[in-house]
Amino acid sequence: MTKNDKKPQPEAESAQSESEPSRPEARLPKGLQDTSAQDNRAQDAMLSTIKTVFEKYGFEPLATPAIEYTDALGKFLPDQDRPNAGVFSFKDDDEQWLSLRYDLTAPLARYVAENYQSLPKPFRRYQAGPVWRNEKPGPGRYRQFMQFDADTVGAASIVADAEVCMLAADTMEALGVPRGQYLVKVNSRKVLDGVMEAIGLSGEANADKRLSALRAIDKLDRLGVEGVRRLLGDGRKDESGDFTKGVGLAETQINSIIAVLQAEEFKDLRRILDQITVNTGGVPDSQRGLAHLPCEDALNEIVEQMEPLIRSAGYGADRIRLDPSIVRGLEYYTGPVFETELTAPIKDKRGQAIRLGSVVSGGRYDGLVERFTGERVPATGISVGVSRLLFGLQLLGKYTGGDAQGPVVVLVFDKDRLGDYQKMVQRLRGADIRAELYLGSSGMKAQMKYADKRGSPCVVIQGSDEKGRGEVQIKDLVLGATLSKIEDREEYLKKRAEAQFAVPEAELVEGIRKVLDRQKA
Amino acid sequence: MTKNDKKPQPEAESAQSESEPSRPEARLPKGLQDTSAQDNRAQDAMLSTIKTVFEKYGFEPLATPAIEYTDALGKFLPDQDRPNAGVFSFKDDDEQWLSLRYDLTAPLARYVAENYQSLPKPFRRYQAGPVWRNEKPGPGRYRQFMQFDADTVGAASIVADAEVCMLAADTMEALGVPRGQYLVKVNSRKVLDGVMEAIGLSGEANADKRLSALRAIDKLDRLGVEGVRRLLGDGRKDESGDFTKGVGLAETQINSIIAVLQAEEFKDLRRILDQITVNTGGVPDSQRGLAHLPCEDALNEIVEQMEPLIRSAGYGADRIRLDPSIVRGLEYYTGPVFETELTAPIKDKRGQAIRLGSVVSGGRYDGLVERFTGERVPATGISVGVSRLLFGLQLLGKYTGGDAQGPVVVLVFDKDRLGDYQKMVQRLRGADIRAELYLGSSGMKAQMKYADKRGSPCVVIQGSDEKGRGEVQIKDLVLGATLSKIEDREEYLKKRAEAQFAVPEAELVEGIRKVLDRQKA
Repeated sequence: MTKNDKKPQPEAESAQSESEPSRPEARLPKGLQDTSAQDNRAQDAMLSTIKTVFEKYGFEPLATPAIEYTDALGKFLPDQDRPNAGVFSFKDDDEQWLSLRYDLTAPLARYVAENYQSLPKPFRRYQAGPVWRNEKPGPGRYRQFMQFDADTVGAASIVADAEVCMLAADTMEALGVPRGQYLVKVNSRKVLDGVMEAIGLSGEANADKRLSALRAIDKLDRLGVEGVRRLLGDGRKDESGDFTKGVGLAETQINSIIAVLQAEEFKDLRRILDQITVNTGGVPDSQRGLAHLPCEDALNEIVEQMEPLIRSAGYGADRIRLDPSIVRGLEYYTGPVFETELTAPIKDKRGQAIRLGSVVSGGRYDGLVERFTGERVPATGISVGVSRLLFGLQLLGKYTGGDAQGPVVVLVFDKDRLGDYQKMVQRLRGADIRAELYLGSSGMKAQMKYADKRGSPCVVIQGSDEKGRGEVQIKDLVLGATLSKIEDREEYLKKRAEAQFAVPEAELVEGIRKVLDRQKA
Repeated sequence: MTKNDKKPQPEAESAQSESEPSRPEARLPKGLQDTSAQDNRAQDAMLSTIKTVFEKYGFEPLATPAIEYTDALGKFLPDQDRPNAGVFSFKDDDEQWLSLRYDLTAPLARYVAENYQSLPKPFRRYQAGPVWRNEKPGPGRYRQFMQFDADTVGAASIVADAEVCMLAADTMEALGVPRGQYLVKVNSRKVLDGVMEAIGLSGEANADKRLSALRAIDKLDRLGVEGVRRLLGDGRKDESGDFTKGVGLAETQINSIIAVLQAEEFKDLRRILDQITVNTGGVPDSQRGLAHLPCEDALNEIVEQMEPLIRSAGYGADRIRLDPSIVRGLEYYTGPVFETELTAPIKDKRGQAIRLGSVVSGGRYDGLVERFTGERVPATGISVGVSRLLFGLQLLGKYTGGDAQGPVVVLVFDKDRLGDYQKMVQRLRGADIRAELYLGSSGMKAQMKYADKRGSPCVVIQGSDEKGRGEVQIKDLVLGATLSKIEDREEYLKKRAEAQFAVPEAELVEGIRKVLDRQKA
């Protein structure tokens, strides 16, 4: 019944057809997934925890819709080689282009630009919701996933950046990731900007090249130094044989970039950048001296202001650390950028180590509101990749569910007495006990199997004998399952009596409570 | 800053442009809305309450994605005069049509068909999420809105229908709607099917006509009897002058339908249907007698089985009532249909009475899984129209928010001491107190205004004097706001001292707690 051999139809015209209607195939589009009860409960628990932390930091909930004008979202995604630049787009009936949001930041910028006058400034908001990317799906890479963002708009101060880094760390710990098993990494886009300037890639004419270089560098995590080196140079062939065209930088330029990425410590950057300036003597701006490079701004901001703030608030290098190799793929960042890694080794179900990538990411995007208004509105924030983080935490043995209890099932012994059974169910529900009536048409054996499959704590049975005595039978499925392992006969009889017992109909609720309390203990 | 005079660009090409880039306009597509912090908190509270009730009934959470194959969703929406039959659709890169879900039922049918073997049967699931309709937006009519559904799949029994009606009633009461201010109305599609048969509209050849008639009838609520009469006949011109083509039924046919819709009591239907059969003597099937009409099935099912079940479970006619005028606009219903109304008179903000329509709706759809598999899988369920219900409840003075407390704001008196202030904030957060550092660049007066706008309970100030004494000032903004109204001087001085006081820095948390507890009392 799950498969059928009909090919999918381009449109569902079948209802109109006069002949035997052709059936659509029941299948999900690639890169999309259904979420099980267990994963939903886990995700709900995560969302609720994140919300508590974000609220504590003073952020307020805002919700923007899933659909925005395409031009309002802009094109900032890393994978521009996809149709519609990685975004799902369609035309409205007035011929204007609409898109599904690819993140929660671009819609926030639209919202702030549209409502600037009435907002408190700075404006602090959080938002949770799905986002959509029209990307090539892969293992753990979906076209719809859940993000949970917190942003401060209208604060130019580096304190705002420091705060969201602390928020990232607090969120990880609130979600049960112990200190030492996660790391928030901080860098600044300006470091890269400075290197680009030093190697002669400044100016409007080089904008495309800088962007391509940025995106190549962002793949360091997945491709390693050699992969990035090839992408910055002539290009790279991946395992499948697909060739990605390179940025076409010269060997010295590539070496300069790699040297920066490989700096062990942020403070080494000054020496490395000095070296780059010397190596690339012919570059126009270098005579102005290192102090004029954007790098120097970044070093001042991050090393001399942000890091001390973070440390003085009690967050050590075991939680938040400066790391020159972080760039982020999104084009709109203008200053500090953040990534959060689960540092515990993660293995997939086949025991293979996997790179999960960043689970809480963000950065400063001072130009995003300006796109609309022409006035600079500084902003910074983080985004929790809820779907990805849940995936990672589950591989680490957390949030694997199993704590939800199935409903008490009232079995249908006598089909003419559905009303009586239904009344029992309503009594249980009225006493705040999760309960349901078996609604299928099968016999007692199938009903017991159903209760098992639902994870029921116990079932209620009332046949004509019980009815005659004004009683109901309660059968404890948890205790019942252990009976077959008991070898001692006396013990067996005692436990069997506990596992299935009769109570007066009037004491149904009390009887069920006894079983539930016993199972909780 | 909120408006700019640039025309929207068809696509965001501005970044590539060499000249002064043209700016996109910050605006939402029509029919979409942003949700304020207050409404988000209200909606969250609603969702959480509904979830509790649905869980108690034994439903399990499932989440399907927003995007499905167009053919998998099918075309069941009432407004087929819209592009793509009221659905937002777009092509995947393999040229297959995708659509945003227009409800949560069609995706459930796809899910069940795809996973039938592994599911417990019956399968009971709940799901909350936004759905999208490509409809003409109007007042209170949005193109994205939130639904919360509960469905039982694989249960042919009318008990399943009775149960979801009780669930609808319980949900309304859990959401704070008192008994007597809501009504769950029940009918069956089969009543209409029977009337259609009686007036000579049975058979495949009349399928389109029946559907058009159905949709005309569904507008009874909005258009009244005369409006429906015109839509069933030659057509109707609305207030804006737009003409809607009618179904083209004859006068006797229309009278028969209207007679059924206007039946006061379900039990009157037998008499009315008898009359119809007599009136339309020439109709082929009528000789078989009323007992063969689908109506009779419906009457048996609903009047003789479902209603007694509902009554015996303790739900009176003040909560759940049979009503022959309910039809529902969605095409896929096959049996009982349900609507829930807020019966209290609702007025909009200008004092005008408004018709909200159904806030919890549903019905039986036994053919929806069969579309995929060819095997009949009976199913029934309800959908809470969360957005619409929230709108209605707010007009009734409920869920209007205002219960969320703003954060304690630590003001920035001395910009060189940001680290110290940040540390205070982190101490408060560490003690589970909602708090934030003022992150803007303005002076003390603007900072106080900001705290007011945020609804802060109090602010923390530490200038150099306080720092020198190792103290912080705490200013109670709620108490402070009442000072100007105090006329007695002694009382004024006493209250002023309570409203602003100093505590040793080490006792910051205790000082803030004192204010928060005082405000709670």
